[in-house]
Amino acid sequence: MPQAKTSRRQLLSESILFASAMALAPHVRGVDDAKRKIGFCVVGIGSLAKNQIIPALAKTENAKLVALVTGHAAEKTPAIVEKFGLNPKSVYSYDNYDSIKDNPEIDVVYVVLPNSMHPEYTIRALKAGKHVLCEKPMANTVEECQQMIDAAKAANKKLMIGYRLRHEPFNMKAIELLRGGSLGKIKNIDAGAGFSIGDPTQWRLNRKMAGGGSMMDIGIYAQNACRYLSGEEPVEVMAMTYSTPNDVRFKEVEETMLFTLRFASGLLANCTSSYGFGVNRYRVTCEKGMVESEPFLSYKDLRLFAKMPGKREREEIVLEPKDHFGAEMDYFAECLREGKEPRTPGEEGLRDMRVITALYESARSGRAVKVGG
Amino acid sequence: MPQAKTSRRQLLSESILFASAMALAPHVRGVDDAKRKIGFCVVGIGSLAKNQIIPALAKTENAKLVALVTGHAAEKTPAIVEKFGLNPKSVYSYDNYDSIKDNPEIDVVYVVLPNSMHPEYTIRALKAGKHVLCEKPMANTVEECQQMIDAAKAANKKLMIGYRLRHEPFNMKAIELLRGGSLGKIKNIDAGAGFSIGDPTQWRLNRKMAGGGSMMDIGIYAQNACRYLSGEEPVEVMAMTYSTPNDVRFKEVEETMLFTLRFASGLLANCTSSYGFGVNRYRVTCEKGMVESEPFLSYKDLRLFAKMPGKREREEIVLEPKDHFGAEMDYFAECLREGKEPRTPGEEGLRDMRVITALYESARSGRAVKVGG
Repeated sequence: MPQAKTSRRQLLSESILFASAMALAPHVRGVDDAKRKIGFCVVGIGSLAKNQIIPALAKTENAKLVALVTGHAAEKTPAIVEKFGLNPKSVYSYDNYDSIKDNPEIDVVYVVLPNSMHPEYTIRALKAGKHVLCEKPMANTVEECQQMIDAAKAANKKLMIGYRLRHEPFNMKAIELLRGGSLGKIKNIDAGAGFSIGDPTQWRLNRKMAGGGSMMDIGIYAQNACRYLSGEEPVEVMAMTYSTPNDVRFKEVEETMLFTLRFASGLLANCTSSYGFGVNRYRVTCEKGMVESEPFLSYKDLRLFAKMPGKREREEIVLEPKDHFGAEMDYFAECLREGKEPRTPGEEGLRDMRVITALYESARSGRAVKVGG
Repeated sequence: MPQAKTSRRQLLSESILFASAMALAPHVRGVDDAKRKIGFCVVGIGSLAKNQIIPALAKTENAKLVALVTGHAAEKTPAIVEKFGLNPKSVYSYDNYDSIKDNPEIDVVYVVLPNSMHPEYTIRALKAGKHVLCEKPMANTVEECQQMIDAAKAANKKLMIGYRLRHEPFNMKAIELLRGGSLGKIKNIDAGAGFSIGDPTQWRLNRKMAGGGSMMDIGIYAQNACRYLSGEEPVEVMAMTYSTPNDVRFKEVEETMLFTLRFASGLLANCTSSYGFGVNRYRVTCEKGMVESEPFLSYKDLRLFAKMPGKREREEIVLEPKDHFGAEMDYFAECLREGKEPRTPGEEGLRDMRVITALYESARSGRAVKVGG
């Protein structure tokens, strides 16, 4: 939707949302289930939740905010409670988190916590009978990813990993162009994701909480893009890392990782991950053309270019942008309504984690490492 | 110079050149040595010599074509002899190559042969008392590079390796911007050089003659660019190669090599080399800006961009182009006149070969490899 119209539409949809929240008391559910908005409980009110995810819930068509979980309710929730017309009882702490099971308004728990907390809060939500949308990276180890998948199966609930770019139009269009066939076989991918990270005290720079450095947080976008752009799985990887000596930010985790992925078909991809400098692009070189995007992962103002067969120059592809998180939540809501498996289920997070585990092992050992099965 | 004016200027400079050749008989040398054009003998009249180097000699200010060496004089030389007013006795075969020592018009031998022939023809030229300009890659092994350097020292003659980009304005400007200091420290380099190679019978696809595949011929540009852009030496490398199975072009040599260079300062560079697809760019990300070029290695129409400190967008830097080979030969002639060491001496070719040797060893072993000292 055009940026200029956002605030008017936002106000409008907030009014509708508020009215809906009032109208849709539990007893009317099932009567018109296909139209009912899916209730989301956001766990962890950090900057991502506060600045992106919760605002997006004011604009979603199929999803609505119904609850919050935070350790700092007094500071963090009053404005949100008021804006979204939440029931004050739907603000949970980490102490009474499991009682979400008694709140029928909550269909989905969206886990927006530090990486190390993803498994516990995902599994507890599943045990409480809720579907889970969990931020990337899914967890800090392959084993934890598997435990989360197993918990979803045991609970017979859906688990989706929050790969927002799989729900936004520019990246979806890139995939469509590459799958269309007219560009021919993919010959090479070059992808990089990085930014200069700030506050040295943040959890992302704490190894125990983040599980690693730039690769876990931002490099995962480059790696994941290689997978969704090619539609293939890496079988072998090589990586080198670097952290600026004496930089207080990188005492525990890597600043930069450069890595190469070898895919099953033989395709090689060169990737960059960094907390030390900005990079936000990919180029997919095909037999008969090229698709590239820069920036490809920013929250807005994405740009996509394609050199189609027979053309000398690349051309820009202009698309109507969408709020990535809003689109992601609407999509998950649609999956729940229609009983379909999301395109980024737990297994997708697990696959990324297998690759990332191999990357760290390669950087550590100085050897090419096969991606674990 | 503007492209449109080339042909008129070319004609003009050819006339002057012809007149000079007539005027500068050996006996007048030394009288006005600073103005005398340096005589070049081109060895190997393949497409590079025929389409780039010899035409460039019609436009050089300090260099002139005085002799040719070829195994196919009857087919390849008459038009050149006529155009440049060469003495027909100055067309040598590989059989009487060593008699170039008796031709005082020849100051420099420019070796444009297949890679495997570089050492022999360079060393024989040095022994004949000539300076040598040798095409990149210098040789197929580090040992041969060292033998060539030793031969130059023994003969007290200069040896320069033909890194044409070190003499063309766009790449020189990129170096200048990066050394200027205002962009701050270099944080990352991403460089790729590749094209889809044609004729499967050409010597570049023959391991014995070429010494390797895309990395020896085109990937060397990406690797060398990382070195001249950073002004640093790689200390450790990792590489992965791929060749399309059953592609007749890649029976002996690698199609694609993706590689990572770790420099002494810790800087990491990600590079691409390919005979399977086109890539022709670098981006140097600095603390306070960015320099990028695409294409950076084509014979013409290079483009250079920089994002300078405080700017939001990159800006294009428009420069007067120069013929790369002409500039290279003029520069070597200037080195000879002024007795200065060229900026790409044999040691520069040797350094590249050390890195390339480590890259092949890494690709073969699947391990990070230290660059040999």
